[in-house]
Amino acid sequence: MSNRIIIPLSALILAIIFSAVPLTNVSSQDNFQQQVKTLFAPLPAAMESKDNPITPEKTHLGKMLFFETRISVDRTVSCSKCHLMSLYATDGLKKAVGNNCKLNPRNAPTVLNAADQISEHWIGNRVSVEDQAKQSLIAPLTFGLSSYKDVELKLKAIPGYDSLFRLAFPGEKDPVNADNFALAVGAWERTLVTPGRFDMYVKGDTTALTRTERDGLALFIKTGCVGCHSGPYLGGTMHDKFGPTQPYWNLTHSEEIDVGRFAVTKKEEDKYVFKVPNLRNVAMTSPYFHDGSVSDMKSAVKIMAQLEVNTTFDDKQADLIVAFLKSLTGQLPEDALTVPILPPEN
Amino acid sequence: MSNRIIIPLSALILAIIFSAVPLTNVSSQDNFQQQVKTLFAPLPAAMESKDNPITPEKTHLGKMLFFETRISVDRTVSCSKCHLMSLYATDGLKKAVGNNCKLNPRNAPTVLNAADQISEHWIGNRVSVEDQAKQSLIAPLTFGLSSYKDVELKLKAIPGYDSLFRLAFPGEKDPVNADNFALAVGAWERTLVTPGRFDMYVKGDTTALTRTERDGLALFIKTGCVGCHSGPYLGGTMHDKFGPTQPYWNLTHSEEIDVGRFAVTKKEEDKYVFKVPNLRNVAMTSPYFHDGSVSDMKSAVKIMAQLEVNTTFDDKQADLIVAFLKSLTGQLPEDALTVPILPPEN
Repeated sequence: MSNRIIIPLSALILAIIFSAVPLTNVSSQDNFQQQVKTLFAPLPAAMESKDNPITPEKTHLGKMLFFETRISVDRTVSCSKCHLMSLYATDGLKKAVGNNCKLNPRNAPTVLNAADQISEHWIGNRVSVEDQAKQSLIAPLTFGLSSYKDVELKLKAIPGYDSLFRLAFPGEKDPVNADNFALAVGAWERTLVTPGRFDMYVKGDTTALTRTERDGLALFIKTGCVGCHSGPYLGGTMHDKFGPTQPYWNLTHSEEIDVGRFAVTKKEEDKYVFKVPNLRNVAMTSPYFHDGSVSDMKSAVKIMAQLEVNTTFDDKQADLIVAFLKSLTGQLPEDALTVPILPPEN
Repeated sequence: MSNRIIIPLSALILAIIFSAVPLTNVSSQDNFQQQVKTLFAPLPAAMESKDNPITPEKTHLGKMLFFETRISVDRTVSCSKCHLMSLYATDGLKKAVGNNCKLNPRNAPTVLNAADQISEHWIGNRVSVEDQAKQSLIAPLTFGLSSYKDVELKLKAIPGYDSLFRLAFPGEKDPVNADNFALAVGAWERTLVTPGRFDMYVKGDTTALTRTERDGLALFIKTGCVGCHSGPYLGGTMHDKFGPTQPYWNLTHSEEIDVGRFAVTKKEEDKYVFKVPNLRNVAMTSPYFHDGSVSDMKSAVKIMAQLEVNTTFDDKQADLIVAFLKSLTGQLPEDALTVPILPPEN
């Protein structure tokens, strides 16, 4: 095994820049606040896309389809199966479970604050939330349908959907189909943002975070975590090697070695490369990492520090980071917390 | 096979009494309305129990526990798995699916308007909603836990529950346990009533049902369906033989023969006896019967008429009954349509 330690350049630069920032007086607090504003941003009101404009008719339908189990091959799978709103749109499992109890290869990431990411899924093999929604329909481990035609027939077998698709996709002759399923679900997911105290802080309300949380944030910046986890979502903007300093499985004790994005690109440099997850609501979405191998947030923080920036956090430091990460828990939109009634089959 | 046809006596008597009721003028409509009031009743505000008083603290906790997957043996089963509010607290499956995809022996009945029934489950082997909630925890096909102690340990592993159990069960030294899980879930389920237009009609608003729905109701009464399906829930008050006139499977084409309540009592007279299901929201809860063998409501109506009261409905008659049954669809309480956020594991 190589002894060479590779730390992301961006992390190193940021660590150098911000290591000099003390938090002792008002003016340095102002400086700090300014730096925070350059590194992060508040969440948008919605994650808009010109390819899939958000309309009330589309989100109304998309939300219903998100909960629709009866079109899957065993009638048990809906988007909501792996993205339970009660668990911040995750499932609490190490790896997602699809139709007929089929184990999926990786942990189900949340669909909250997800639509602006560089890609969807851990290995970046879905280009958008719409692509993810559509492909899941015929993925053998997920909805398990045999074809998009099959999706269409199943949607058409539930009489109430016809008028809803017509409203959401006006002017289309035959709007009940898998493409529009994906557009409707995607449009709804584009509304799933969860603003919270961190956004108030980034906007300038210095009292929105506690002193401990601010100290955690300062350590998060100083250590270089922001090298990957920055922007409005604190991540989701790049694919990067999990474990530049040493093989990740040394520390995660993963049950199996996942080659990551290499499975998509077949390029050697993509071995063990995963999408950097966004950290919004991370305290609510254990277990962690692509394989859910670590349940405890503090352990996950220590592992990340060691793997990514070759830093050993003591308990106090890890606690500070955890305190900061907990401040990233936001509020789900009211619409995401109400269940739609689905049209009957008769 | 015997040619003897046995029709429930109560059904016969009611059929004779009500067959003389025409719906042609105002005074006979008044008579009809009066008869409806003697046969049915509006839903209560909640299904109270002196053994398990409903308190806000208990229902708050009970609702969370209803959605709690992380205590089941494979972390995928919650009450909500088989009782999806989007499907009027059913799952759209012929037979319920529990942990690790284990197929349950019968269709999952709704938990809406369920707590006042003579018993729970199709064969009456659960005495109350509390009993059902508790036993499901260690049922091998449902939550699959090895013991009630195991339930307790799993609940205690999620830190946020301790204070919620203490609030719901004040004064108890060690309130986090399976008995209190059952009481809390049961208390919440006791609030799940779904009043609708039928209740307005029973209370005296004759315009609350359409003419077609009222004609369907008259036929429902005249044919003798009310012999079993009466009261506020239109059923749920007795165990009775499914198919007194001929073996039920002749018409349902069930995949297997279920001995029904005989499995509980071992009494010959309980062979093929099931709980008479309540008909509230029946249009929203296909597929039908204890084994979900029939998906189409109109077919189910024709089968019931033939099996139970030896009556052959033509299409027009079956349509009238279906129109009436659709009027039994009520409104879920707002609280049942909002998802609770569950406490994190960290």
